Amino acid sequence: MSGIWGNRLKVSIFGESHGEAIGAVIDGLPPGIKLDLEAVRSQMKRRAPGQGGITTARREEDEFQILSGFFNGYTTGTPLAFIIKNNDTRSSDYEYLKNVPRPGHGDYTGKIKYRGYNDYRGGGHFSGRITAPIVFVGAICRQFLEEKGIYIGSHIKNIGKADDDSFDAVHIDKDLIFKLNVMRLPLIAEEKIKDMESEIMLAKADGDSIGGSVECAVIGLGAGLGEPFFDSVESRLAHILFSIPGVKGVEFGSGFSSVRMRGSEVNDEFYIQDGEIKTKTNHCGGILGGITNGMPIIFRVAIKPTPSIAKNQKSVDMTKMETVDLNIKGRHDPCIVPRAVPVVEAAAAIGIIDFVLEE
Amino acid sequence: MSGIWGNRLKVSIFGESHGEAIGAVIDGLPPGIKLDLEAVRSQMKRRAPGQGGITTARREEDEFQILSGFFNGYTTGTPLAFIIKNNDTRSSDYEYLKNVPRPGHGDYTGKIKYRGYNDYRGGGHFSGRITAPIVFVGAICRQFLEEKGIYIGSHIKNIGKADDDSFDAVHIDKDLIFKLNVMRLPLIAEEKIKDMESEIMLAKADGDSIGGSVECAVIGLGAGLGEPFFDSVESRLAHILFSIPGVKGVEFGSGFSSVRMRGSEVNDEFYIQDGEIKTKTNHCGGILGGITNGMPIIFRVAIKPTPSIAKNQKSVDMTKMETVDLNIKGRHDPCIVPRAVPVVEAAAAIGIIDFVLEE
Amino acid sequence: MSGIWGNRLKVSIFGESHGEAIGAVIDGLPPGIKLDLEAVRSQMKRRAPGQGGITTARREEDEFQILSGFFNGYTTGTPLAFIIKNNDTRSSDYEYLKNVPRPGHGDYTGKIKYRGYNDYRGGGHFSGRITAPIVFVGAICRQFLEEKGIYIGSHIKNIGKADDDSFDAVHIDKDLIFKLNVMRLPLIAEEKIKDMESEIMLAKADGDSIGGSVECAVIGLGAGLGEPFFDSVESRLAHILFSIPGVKGVEFGSGFSSVRMRGSEVNDEFYIQDGEIKTKTNHCGGILGGITNGMPIIFRVAIKPTPSIAKNQKSVDMTKMETVDLNIKGRHDPCIVPRAVPVVEAAAAIGIIDFVLEE
Amino acid sequence: MSGIWGNRLKVSIFGESHGEAIGAVIDGLPPGIKLDLEAVRSQMKRRAPGQGGITTARREEDEFQILSGFFNGYTTGTPLAFIIKNNDTRSSDYEYLKNVPRPGHGDYTGKIKYRGYNDYRGGGHFSGRITAPIVFVGAICRQFLEEKGIYIGSHIKNIGKADDDSFDAVHIDKDLIFKLNVMRLPLIAEEKIKDMESEIMLAKADGDSIGGSVECAVIGLGAGLGEPFFDSVESRLAHILFSIPGVKGVEFGSGFSSVRMRGSEVNDEFYIQDGEIKTKTNHCGGILGGITNGMPIIFRVAIKPTPSIAKNQKSVDMTKMETVDLNIKGRHDPCIVPRAVPVVEAAAAIGIIDFVLEE
Repeated sequence: MSGIWGNRLKVSIFGESHGEAIGAVIDGLPPGIKLDLEAVRSQMKRRAPGQGGITTARREEDEFQILSGFFNGYTTGTPLAFIIKNNDTRSSDYEYLKNVPRPGHGDYTGKIKYRGYNDYRGGGHFSGRITAPIVFVGAICRQFLEEKGIYIGSHIKNIGKADDDSFDAVHIDKDLIFKLNVMRLPLIAEEKIKDMESEIMLAKADGDSIGGSVECAVIGLGAGLGEPFFDSVESRLAHILFSIPGVKGVEFGSGFSSVRMRGSEVNDEFYIQDGEIKTKTNHCGGILGGITNGMPIIFRVAIKPTPSIAKNQKSVDMTKMETVDLNIKGRHDPCIVPRAVPVVEAAAAIGIIDFVLEE
Repeated sequence: MSGIWGNRLKVSIFGESHGEAIGAVIDGLPPGIKLDLEAVRSQMKRRAPGQGGITTARREEDEFQILSGFFNGYTTGTPLAFIIKNNDTRSSDYEYLKNVPRPGHGDYTGKIKYRGYNDYRGGGHFSGRITAPIVFVGAICRQFLEEKGIYIGSHIKNIGKADDDSFDAVHIDKDLIFKLNVMRLPLIAEEKIKDMESEIMLAKADGDSIGGSVECAVIGLGAGLGEPFFDSVESRLAHILFSIPGVKGVEFGSGFSSVRMRGSEVNDEFYIQDGEIKTKTNHCGGILGGITNGMPIIFRVAIKPTPSIAKNQKSVDMTKMETVDLNIKGRHDPCIVPRAVPVVEAAAAIGIIDFVLEE
Repeated sequence: MSGIWGNRLKVSIFGESHGEAIGAVIDGLPPGIKLDLEAVRSQMKRRAPGQGGITTARREEDEFQILSGFFNGYTTGTPLAFIIKNNDTRSSDYEYLKNVPRPGHGDYTGKIKYRGYNDYRGGGHFSGRITAPIVFVGAICRQFLEEKGIYIGSHIKNIGKADDDSFDAVHIDKDLIFKLNVMRLPLIAEEKIKDMESEIMLAKADGDSIGGSVECAVIGLGAGLGEPFFDSVESRLAHILFSIPGVKGVEFGSGFSSVRMRGSEVNDEFYIQDGEIKTKTNHCGGILGGITNGMPIIFRVAIKPTPSIAKNQKSVDMTKMETVDLNIKGRHDPCIVPRAVPVVEAAAAIGIIDFVLEE
Repeated sequence: MSGIWGNRLKVSIFGESHGEAIGAVIDGLPPGIKLDLEAVRSQMKRRAPGQGGITTARREEDEFQILSGFFNGYTTGTPLAFIIKNNDTRSSDYEYLKNVPRPGHGDYTGKIKYRGYNDYRGGGHFSGRITAPIVFVGAICRQFLEEKGIYIGSHIKNIGKADDDSFDAVHIDKDLIFKLNVMRLPLIAEEKIKDMESEIMLAKADGDSIGGSVECAVIGLGAGLGEPFFDSVESRLAHILFSIPGVKGVEFGSGFSSVRMRGSEVNDEFYIQDGEIKTKTNHCGGILGGITNGMPIIFRVAIKPTPSIAKNQKSVDMTKMETVDLNIKGRHDPCIVPRAVPVVEAAAAIGIIDFVLEE
């Protein structure tokens, strides 16, 4: 099965890129959460395509419709279901892909797994479009978390050769989070925007695509959330982050850098500040023994370049079983990273809400 | 909850470092698997401490006792439970740690989460010792997988500054796997063993510890295993890999390197060989759209340096709420990476077995 | 949470009686099941209201719309989502019930649990209307089961004082199942139809309602399905049967009669027929040790009288905290049993499909 | 899989009647529960065999050993594992049953499901002995529930023809619960003890066994616990009650009697007493819409006669595929009902604790 996530909060997603509608059912939301649908829409907008030159030309309003679980402005406590209709679809763009899988895409593995019965149009259930419901669910979770003083923000750590600065892992101001939440290309060192855009434009000019990474922070979580072993905060977050199409790596705190470090460098020294126990550094990314220590949670997500590129590629025709040239038509992002930012944040919100509900 | 994993096969682990015993219950094993207990013992031995200078002096036989689910040499199909008694424990070594958490360890977060009721001796349930049951379970799973031609092997990618070569992601020979499975320090470029050992010895000499990474390969898996989204192969594997104490990063295929690459480089070109569809490269690490494509699964795991070091560190006394000097007694590994290798392989086996059982 | 069921097949239901729409997401359906939507519609029709005098006057087409997971006439293997719009709703009928719970109904407990935020109109999420998605899901499961020669049928065992005969627990013919599946009031002794109808009419005439029971049979299941203890066939079936509003009792085989019997009477004697092991009687209802023995599965479900009656009742106003007279307006069934029959069968199908998918 | 139960609290049982040991792992227990092991032992004693003439002569101390999750007299919050060694086993008693299934027992279905690999000695994993761990787990849960003022008690409703009175469903005094908890044959009308015992003795004299039923009450639960549909209190309780070997029926409140009643009789009228909303009757057994209404939860469990009887029976030899005469040796209860009482109460405790932990 592909589509159920969570323990206290269970999310069940569905839909294909060119089907009737996509959406999800959210089970386990507490009753009485006042929902700000405008805030949800603006999160959806961050992920939506058609934001000018650097993203695909496909225009999708992503207008959602809530079917249940929401009454008089509040969550009811019963399952909240919503759908997003698929409007602007050009299936003809994909007909020729039926038997020719795009390299780096789920076309091939999906066809094998589902024995050819899956809806191949536009990638079907494998389409990045299915991340729209995840952003919706995340937006709901974020409103619940923000009531508890928990905020999630991220920035583009890099696109190709262009790097942004890193979070100060020890002190992350709420205002920085708010600021990043509304930037089109969220960056800590704003002057880097030109380098980032040029990396994208150069790839686009070559009919190619480019990868990048996102650094995300969760602030306001108290100490003591999570579990050792199979329900560690890292395990739960990595699980849902790796469900996002295109994600190929996840690291917490110093992550892969710590493989070259000494214990004396990595161990975060404890100290007392205003009667509270804190750590002077945050190499652990706010998680020790699988459990939050009250410092910001920091992680980075590696996103591979979009597989759909205009450039000529070689593939195989699975019916004729012969090699063929592939020239992908349709409208695609040269770089998915900017649109992935709100998806990563939504996944983080969905990933930690169980722990918060457990409290 | 901390200790239940899996869908088709459910594993329930338990135990504290200095308690009566540690162990697990495995539910969902098919009946009729002929178990080679000697093979299980040799896997346990790979993880066991006391293997000479480079690991802790604590000697633990890790002799297991099967209590149920095993009859006349075969699995019965009913829950298989086993225990490993705790013998060589020196709780006195840890008494002084009751209120003084070790930096980088789960002492602090555990005390907060469990409100001081947890067994703090030797790290209690947070101890690396609890990975012994994971190796046992993994050994059982591996015997089942090997019957189906699926093999798991790994090597130490790096320890501190010392690097090994990488797997050839496209062709990994079964014999290489077998060879690595029996090496004390599994390396592809065996001559690197001296650099690796010297990194460990230097850290030990300084009363310090050193981090490293493990690269793991799973070969023999057919195409079509896994799911899009929440049950992607990356999600399930990352989930269980991040349950291993000390793991701070996981990447598949080109992982974090792909964030600087172009789609035209990363997309693995399809071709036909002897009537089978293969890919010329394996940047995706054998997984597309969350589903196996029949190529080797390749992933790397970042392991931070052991937090327990002899060097003087600063910490806090949680009862007196004052800063204190910490000098950790007891016996600890300067580098956990070599002993982590069989744990990573066991976790991989436990992580994929659900998919194989689904078939 | 209220709405997720299953292991191999996961069903996530949603909706309120007077909300936008009701429906469900089905995750885990194998790809390539050819769906006969007409057959689904006829199952929906069996449950639908407005079937003349003996059921409520509320007319609801129960026209469903499939949103995903269904492509070119076959299941895709990805989540199948569907909705049923709510059309003919008279919320005004219920406004006055906002603070006055109907005795025997979920109004009171729902208001407490959801702290007054739940949609109270027409019983909201507690409405029997939410069984429509269950019938839809069951209809899909039944088509899958029938391909494997597994059939489900039931009859009304009693309504008030009027009793039908019982199944011959040892021999149940497929044709009997087919016949019962299309009867408006499914009975083994057809001549009892008048007694049943008069029981209903008498209750209606008194502005009252009447209870009854349904006996259900599942034929064609092989031996060896199910588990001891927590996944016993009885456990799984009872779990889902008790999710149906109004069900207050479930018994298998001789059930409550066996409490007065001797072992020598209840033990079903084994014998061999055409090289197959069978039992001469079927007091166990086809289940021994939680596992199917190849004989028909037989169970009975007790359904209490509909709580919504026209008769004057006493209740309390939960805001004013005072006793009040209650006269329920709106349109209600004097007897829910006939409409419950397809729901019981659907639940049975959903309850056993995991075991069949496990095979 | 057979052995994992629960959401907030997960129980994983294991063991075979004649294996090394039986036991369970309890995951999700809150830290800091002070455990009274004497109270646990007395619960175990209630289920233990060897209580004189009316139960089997097999003497089993059922002495448990806690392996983890318990430290300095309190639960730690990490998984609590315990084992019960199997001592007094006479496997030879069962050798001849290897290929000859006992009618009414799990021998046949177990052999089919596990393809002959299961431990058949003494019923193996299907043995009533595996209910000992359930009683242990229930005893732990009960101590947690009692701290919250929630008590569970039951009485033998009938054995064969001998009936006890019923609970007063509206008023159940805590002292009655305590009294029933310590009676060897818990009865409301104590004078019925002779009739009950004679029913058992008569069956025994005939080398036969006799069935019976248990009525159980849970008091002290507030209103608002449980869920509509798939997590209804009836669903969860029935699920775990039907996991007890020999249980063939479960009904709540008026249960199967309500199938002959009118809505006006069954609907429990609301009224206000000391500012609290109560119901004048309790036909719903304390559950409306799947959710507790604050009245006592009342349910009855039908237990079939023990299948193991001394009387000559017919069965089949599964290897020779021929009919054979069966004379069961070994030591068996003529009536399992008295020993089932603490198991039913334990299951009820395990069944509701998730809802209480959810609060």
